[in-house]
Amino acid sequence: MYRRRTHTVDILNVSLATRSYPILVGAGLIGRADLFRERLAAREVLIVSNTTVAPLYLPQLTAALSGRRILEVLLPDGEAHKTLANMARILDVLIANHFARDCAVLALGGGVVGDLAGFAAASYQRGVTLVQLPTTLLAQVDSAVGGKTGVNHPGGKNLIGAFHQPALVVSDTRALATLPARELRAGLSEVIKYGLICDAPLFEWLEAHLDEVLAGDAAALAHVIRRSCEIKAEIVGRDEREQGERALLNLGHTFGHALESATSYKEWLHGEAVGAGLVMAAAMSSACGLLAAADAERVRALIERAGLPTRSASVTAQAALEHMRIDKKVLGGRLRLVLLRRIGEAFVTADYPAPALARTLEAHCG
Amino acid sequence: MYRRRTHTVDILNVSLATRSYPILVGAGLIGRADLFRERLAAREVLIVSNTTVAPLYLPQLTAALSGRRILEVLLPDGEAHKTLANMARILDVLIANHFARDCAVLALGGGVVGDLAGFAAASYQRGVTLVQLPTTLLAQVDSAVGGKTGVNHPGGKNLIGAFHQPALVVSDTRALATLPARELRAGLSEVIKYGLICDAPLFEWLEAHLDEVLAGDAAALAHVIRRSCEIKAEIVGRDEREQGERALLNLGHTFGHALESATSYKEWLHGEAVGAGLVMAAAMSSACGLLAAADAERVRALIERAGLPTRSASVTAQAALEHMRIDKKVLGGRLRLVLLRRIGEAFVTADYPAPALARTLEAHCG
Repeated sequence: MYRRRTHTVDILNVSLATRSYPILVGAGLIGRADLFRERLAAREVLIVSNTTVAPLYLPQLTAALSGRRILEVLLPDGEAHKTLANMARILDVLIANHFARDCAVLALGGGVVGDLAGFAAASYQRGVTLVQLPTTLLAQVDSAVGGKTGVNHPGGKNLIGAFHQPALVVSDTRALATLPARELRAGLSEVIKYGLICDAPLFEWLEAHLDEVLAGDAAALAHVIRRSCEIKAEIVGRDEREQGERALLNLGHTFGHALESATSYKEWLHGEAVGAGLVMAAAMSSACGLLAAADAERVRALIERAGLPTRSASVTAQAALEHMRIDKKVLGGRLRLVLLRRIGEAFVTADYPAPALARTLEAHCG
Repeated sequence: MYRRRTHTVDILNVSLATRSYPILVGAGLIGRADLFRERLAAREVLIVSNTTVAPLYLPQLTAALSGRRILEVLLPDGEAHKTLANMARILDVLIANHFARDCAVLALGGGVVGDLAGFAAASYQRGVTLVQLPTTLLAQVDSAVGGKTGVNHPGGKNLIGAFHQPALVVSDTRALATLPARELRAGLSEVIKYGLICDAPLFEWLEAHLDEVLAGDAAALAHVIRRSCEIKAEIVGRDEREQGERALLNLGHTFGHALESATSYKEWLHGEAVGAGLVMAAAMSSACGLLAAADAERVRALIERAGLPTRSASVTAQAALEHMRIDKKVLGGRLRLVLLRRIGEAFVTADYPAPALARTLEAHCG
């Protein structure tokens, strides 16, 4: 029997009562008019993308959406453009064109496009339909799922934003073929993170199959995306607003955000900073006597094999600590961290020896 | 038995599952340290107010909050300042001072302050605690309750914003003593609206007791505030996100917003525009054969007695229609209106004769 491979779509579900939504994963989905006909009612759509992604995928997407009123906003590429000013630009276009409350905003690109377009969709008329079409590994395994949207501020990353769940996520695995190797590696840090917080077998699978993933093997990538989305969907389904468990997803991020912020988001991709952040979180967990030193070393080794940074040469320990203090996870004046008990088990705590943090930063900074 | 009048607090509850909150109504509440000690855990508070209200009530409020870290942002007074730029100003202060996620934003003022501070609280770190301290009648009976926050755009009113429920609303009726008569009257239009949409006895009570309310009689005002909050709390409790019934609260607002927008928010207070909008909605309901002409006349007469405008001399029918089209209630390209079947019963419809709308605008504009 002939199986039409091009029509294969994996469907995962994020369960959130009235705001549940499907994640579609498959090859060539961006151009699939049938999927949008079935799953997107809006007659007015604004596509937000960037100048790198748009030439590659915008024509397919607009063709798949034909018959609707389509507007486009193209932003410059890069984290430095995830600003309130660019979010306002998107709103200006929606308003100037009198888009109604039943319009949809489509985010075609990586995490920056998704976060910006998502915050604009959350804020326009207090919330319109959002569709995420992630084209980077990082966005497909992480930022496009779960409803966190927002922009950066000179004072810190993602300090301004909203929780706004997409109505639909379309992850076209074929888009990864055009993704620069550096970006593919950056996305892997989030996948490694999922293994660390709750799925030791995934971590071990990565140790065994990393080379296939790095080589862009389609089956290996599809496995990684599906499993990551499953884990994230489960956690978000149980704790949408990060009152508890969802905070585990910040493993490595308090360190990573500080490094990004201290370098004005210019030196590293987000996933690279998270890579170094995971190494620091593991080292800190080990310094606190929680994680076996051998396991902290496994984390470092996997991050290194993935071609991700394991330390920062340009940020001093002092600067990193300063930037950690203004992180969103400071509560009651005490910095909370996600630490590891073992590979596959993370927890949030504000109860750790301050010298362990200082030593960890000194060993991995400057 | 001696009753300590100054300690009288009426407590109403807005029921929203995990986000339920109390509305406190009473005289002298802004200065009541005991209430804040009991009901506000945040140790870091940012008070947003304006240059008119702050000299009157900020000292009492800061005294009542003593022992906490207090910041203040004072904005110029008026609807023209309800902008994304001023919302960003509030965020800049929160960020520059490293306020943590468990901080609180307190809105001390009227609807403009509440909407702006509310949107900032919704967006800072994707949502921090908001306390509404409304000092105008309009804010006490309407805007401080229900979680709608946002800012204006040159293209239209409240086009950018979020749903973000306060954790606490403190309505100090004593603040109304310093309220200019014009603002008191403007607030009344929302009270009249509640009567029209679902409470004929309230409408009749206003017909009988309007003079006491206008004279600032404390008991009459307290009655009006309590009943208005009860009605709004019930409706919001059933339909927080305006999927259905909550849209009834927009009675008169589609007309009113168009008039405000066409005059760049400079000619009328919001409540004045709503006053004229209610007259238009009643007239339109009558023109559609729904509402008895005598009842439309009762609406017009009560609005007039309240000292509110019943028509716009400066906006043409053409301009009003243009501005209505970009109102948020346009869905599927068809303008939806809230109309009256009788006093005390409103409904939403997009099914009305276009000439009736044109005639209504012509009779009440230009």
